[in-house]
Parts: sequence; structure tokens; C-alpha cells
Amino acid sequence: MTKHRVTIREVAHKAQVSQQTVSNVINGTGRMSEQTKKRVQSVITTLGYHSNRPAQMLRTGHSRMIGITVPRFDQPFCSLFCDCVAQYARQRGYGLVVSVFGDNFEETIKETYQLNADGWIFFADATILRRIRHLKQDYPVILAGDYLGDGELDAVMMPNVDASRYATNWLIEHSDGHVGMIGASFDTYEQDAKDPDPIPLRLRHARDRNTDMRLHGYLLALQDHAIQPDWTIIRPVRKLIEAEGERATEMLLQTGDIPSGIICANDALALGALSTLSKHHISVPEQIQVIGFDNTRESHYSSPPLSTVDPYVMQYAQLAVQQLIARIEGSIEEVHVLTTDYRLVERHTTI
Amino acid sequence: MTKHRVTIREVAHKAQVSQQTVSNVINGTGRMSEQTKKRVQSVITTLGYHSNRPAQMLRTGHSRMIGITVPRFDQPFCSLFCDCVAQYARQRGYGLVVSVFGDNFEETIKETYQLNADGWIFFADATILRRIRHLKQDYPVILAGDYLGDGELDAVMMPNVDASRYATNWLIEHSDGHVGMIGASFDTYEQDAKDPDPIPLRLRHARDRNTDMRLHGYLLALQDHAIQPDWTIIRPVRKLIEAEGERATEMLLQTGDIPSGIICANDALALGALSTLSKHHISVPEQIQVIGFDNTRESHYSSPPLSTVDPYVMQYAQLAVQQLIARIEGSIEEVHVLTTDYRLVERHTTI
Repeated sequence: MTKHRVTIREVAHKAQVSQQTVSNVINGTGRMSEQTKKRVQSVITTLGYHSNRPAQMLRTGHSRMIGITVPRFDQPFCSLFCDCVAQYARQRGYGLVVSVFGDNFEETIKETYQLNADGWIFFADATILRRIRHLKQDYPVILAGDYLGDGELDAVMMPNVDASRYATNWLIEHSDGHVGMIGASFDTYEQDAKDPDPIPLRLRHARDRNTDMRLHGYLLALQDHAIQPDWTIIRPVRKLIEAEGERATEMLLQTGDIPSGIICANDALALGALSTLSKHHISVPEQIQVIGFDNTRESHYSSPPLSTVDPYVMQYAQLAVQQLIARIEGSIEEVHVLTTDYRLVERHTTI
Repeated sequence: MTKHRVTIREVAHKAQVSQQTVSNVINGTGRMSEQTKKRVQSVITTLGYHSNRPAQMLRTGHSRMIGITVPRFDQPFCSLFCDCVAQYARQRGYGLVVSVFGDNFEETIKETYQLNADGWIFFADATILRRIRHLKQDYPVILAGDYLGDGELDAVMMPNVDASRYATNWLIEHSDGHVGMIGASFDTYEQDAKDPDPIPLRLRHARDRNTDMRLHGYLLALQDHAIQPDWTIIRPVRKLIEAEGERATEMLLQTGDIPSGIICANDALALGALSTLSKHHISVPEQIQVIGFDNTRESHYSSPPLSTVDPYVMQYAQLAVQQLIARIEGSIEEVHVLTTDYRLVERHTTI
């Protein structure tokens, strides 16, 4: 095992031809004798040279790869989305490269653009919001993850407000109507809770951040049934992960006022909620019904299996990939915001 | 938004300097006036040029990126492993790029090597086995996923035999001793089951494939207690995913012979098993105890929370990254096989 990549120069030297000839053999271009061609091919095999994408990129400007960035894989939606994007990109003849930005967004953006993808899907969580200027790039980018690109970037979104309103209405109509929510934004919760307006102005105008839009949908459903919001059964979270679902549910139980149903801003929170309810021997769905959001694979396998909003993740991936490829191939100009369909999947956490 | 990357040539043209000068400004090399430097930097910003890794790679041969391939994210271990690798790689000053090979291994291997990582961790499932010749590459590669590199490649493995033997012994000692297993290899199950030897020779010699090694550990534990294997309570699976855990558990229940405990070859299978046991109203751990393998995040949040073998995934990631960086930096020569430690995490699926 050697530690360096074999270069085209080494191949040329060993085969006693010019670098251009090696390049011609690799690309099937130029003119040369069958003998030369065979000799070069044999050296390529012997040395283990593989025509590398950097060189090819510099030549053609295209890699036939698309990229996706994710913050990390600590919640199930990211994994599901990556699998769907990979599958659909391949159908369209593109490879996929994934970049994990973690807490290091600016640095990773730089790395990302230095990789060879023809364009990028940025799957963003809240931390991306203040850094969006880094995304105003000179090549194809699609935002995914319920954040808007301020008219500078294409975005693919979920039907957050409508789907959350639909699921909440369903829960109100299938219970005594005392329905709570887990997954408000932690940083604005106090302010929203103090607002005398049943739907705080801030939420009414929310056009990005899934937590805000899903809370807006929830409040609209209460309004549909002329129910005043009860902010003791609306709980904030710091991140959309299971541990926060557990914490928020503990807080909810401490109020002593157990609602007959809860809408969770995503499946990870809902799984955390189920875990805590089970610890407290509160039976689901008899004492409390639970609905998640995302229809991740994990929602099938929870006990009881989780009822959830299906935002059609495959469609989400397809819209993002289609739009990105259209950008790459230069067939669109205007900035688009695309939204998926939705349905409520009834499993065993609802009656 | 334009559809092409800005080239160094365009920057040079607009700034009225040579490409070499632009390159010098980017790399902080060469000599030039402050004025020229500022003009070039201003053009770089205006045009949105970013020095790209292809060019840099061709120049230096190093990218300070490591890569990891995964088959897909359809089981929780992959996600957890990627997060750990990303975190530790960053600590070591390397970025991470992930490649998803799906069902298209040969094609992805090519893509992978054409990406710019300095080396690759191949996280492999069974499908990689017959294709290992593709991995005998001319640059740093580490195999992860309990497959050996035939002395050609470094590998990081879990303590499959020992940990499985330990967990099975624990379960035998904490029950009536009638302990089954879910997660034998489907393609050899019939053959193993017919073998009169309590530990089939094939398994005794298994040095890779986690299913074979974990089954070997299970059979060793039976031997430790002088228990003859009962192949009706050892169930094969096609893949290590939840759906197969459900299917295998259904098959197990159909035999009418419910063991007092089951060892599952990974957490995903165990979660599938819990789901099926719950559907059949078989109480865990009272009627049947369940132990998984991997200690994935999902095992915390199942109902009941899953007891599982913790193979120290962070250590696994660190060993893989350390070994890969040592290869990249050329400080080792011999091929190594590294193995993690383990412990049993007792949660609520065991008594």
C-alpha cells in the first residue's frame, strides 16, 4: 500500500509516452497505434492509476455528482432524507456525496464548495439561519429543511402550517379537545406565551422555521374550534431530538394538567414523549393520544407504533434533486419555493 | 445565480494579471505589490471565486478530508458511526465526506476514489464481501463493519464473538437457560442447522461477518453451560434491519416454543422483535428477555428501553480514523486489525 495517488505523469513516464497520450487513452480521444494504447492501458492497470475527478473537473467543469449537507445524523429524518436523495439522484444519473457540518457551519461550507459536486442541497436546521449569506453562492444550491432562501436560493419545504393544522384538528375532533403541543421554539416561547393574541403576530407571519410554522398550524386549528390556547400545555424544545421530547413531556406532566392529546413537531420528539409517558405508566392512546411529524422509519417500530404526519419524504427528495439538476443543467432562472403534499398516517398512538 | 464555477482564468482576466499571480495571492506565495494583491482579492470576492479543491489537490496531493462510505442509512448504526467519525475527524483537523453506495458498489467505489479525500473508511455490510478486490487500492483504506481485508487492508472490528458469548451467558444465567438468537446468516442457516456438531466448523472458523461471529459467540455460551443448540429458536435474517427482526420473531412465535430470552445480532433486529412481541401481547422482560447489539441511540428510546451490548462506537470510530490518518501520513506499514472493547448495558428488556 503506498500513501500517494499515482499521477498521470508517472503513467506517462513508465509507458514512455506524453501525458497528453495517456489522457487520450483515458478519454478515448486522439489518435495512436493499437500497440501504444495497449501499453498505456497496461501501465494504468499495473500502477493502479485511476483517472481522477479533480483533473476531469478542471477539464469539463462537471462531475455528475450532487452533494447534500446535513448537520449530523442525530435525528432519524436526516438519514431517511439522505437515503431518498441518494436513490433518486442515481435514477437521474448522478452520484451523491454527503457533507456533515456539525457545529462548524462556516468551515464546512468552504469544504463543501471545494468538493466536486455540480451543486448542493443544504439540509439545514435552525443554526443555518443567521449564516445564510454564506449560501449566496455562484453555483447551484437548493435549501431544504423548512428555511427560505430570501429570494436568493431555491427552497423545498414541507406543508408545515397546513399539515399541523390538519393533524391538530383531527386530534381535537377525536378527543375532548384539550390538545397540547411539544416543539415550540425555545428562544421565543416566553414572548409568544405572553402575547394576548391567540395567534401571536410573529407566528402568523412565520414563513420559515418548521417549529414556528407547525405551532402556527396548531394555533389555527384551535381557532377553527374557537379554543383559546393554553400555554401550559404548549412546550418548548431546544432541538428536535428524542431527549428534548422526554424533557418537554416531563415538564408537561409536572403541570399536573395532562392533555388528552399532543401534537409533536417531529417524530423524534414524539418518540421521546412516548418513552416518558411509558415511564410514568400513562397509557397511549387511552389516556393521551400522540401524533408526530415526518413518518420516519422509527415511527413504524415504536411501541405503540406512532401516528404521524407523512410529508412524503421521497417527494421532498425528488423535488430537491429535480430542482437542483434543473439549475445545474441551466434550464431554470427564477427562484422557486416548492412544497410537498401530506397525509396523516394513523397507527396506534391515536384512537 | 450562474450555472458555472468561476475559473481562475476569469479572475486573472478581470484583474489583468497572470493566472500564476492569482494563484500566488490565493496561496500567499510569490511576490507582488500590495495594490495588485488587493485588486486580485477584490475580483475574487466580486466574482465569487473560491479556490477549488481539484486544483489544490492536483498541486498538493492532499485535501485534509477523509471519506467514509456507507451502504445506506436504513439502520441506526450507520448514522451513529458517521456522527462519531465526523466528530473525531474534526478533532484531528480533517473534514469528512460521506459516500452512499446503495446497491451500486462497483460504481460507487469508482466515484469514491475520484472524490478528493486523502483516504477512506469503508463501512461495509455483507454485499461488499465478494467485491473486496475493488478495495485493493493504491491509497489509504480502512475496512470497518466486521469484514477482514485478507491481509491487504487495515480493519477495525467489534469483539463479536466475545461480546455475544458474554451477553448470552448473562441471559442464560438470568433465566431458565432456554435462550434463542435472531440474526443468523440466511444463506447458510439450513446448512448450519443440519450440522451435527454443536458449533458447526464453518462458524468455529468465522473471522469476519458479524452474523457468523455473533452466532459463534452464542453457541460458545451454550457450550459453556453444556446446553445443546436448539435450531428452532435460532432464526435467520436477510438483513440486519427492523423489518427482518419482526419477520424472524413471527417465525419464532409460530414454532410455539417461546424462549425465555433472545440475543439479537443488532439493535435494529431487537427493535423489530420488541415491536412483534408487543403486537402479540408477550410481555418483555417478564415472559421474554431481549438483548440487542450496538447501543444505538434508538435503543434508549424503545419501549421498554433496550438492553444491549455496547461495542463503544466512539472508540470504533476513533480507531478507524487514527489508523486512517496514520496511513495517510505514512507512519505505519504493516496491516492491522483493531478491535474495540465492550460492555453489557442493562436497561428494561432484561430482568
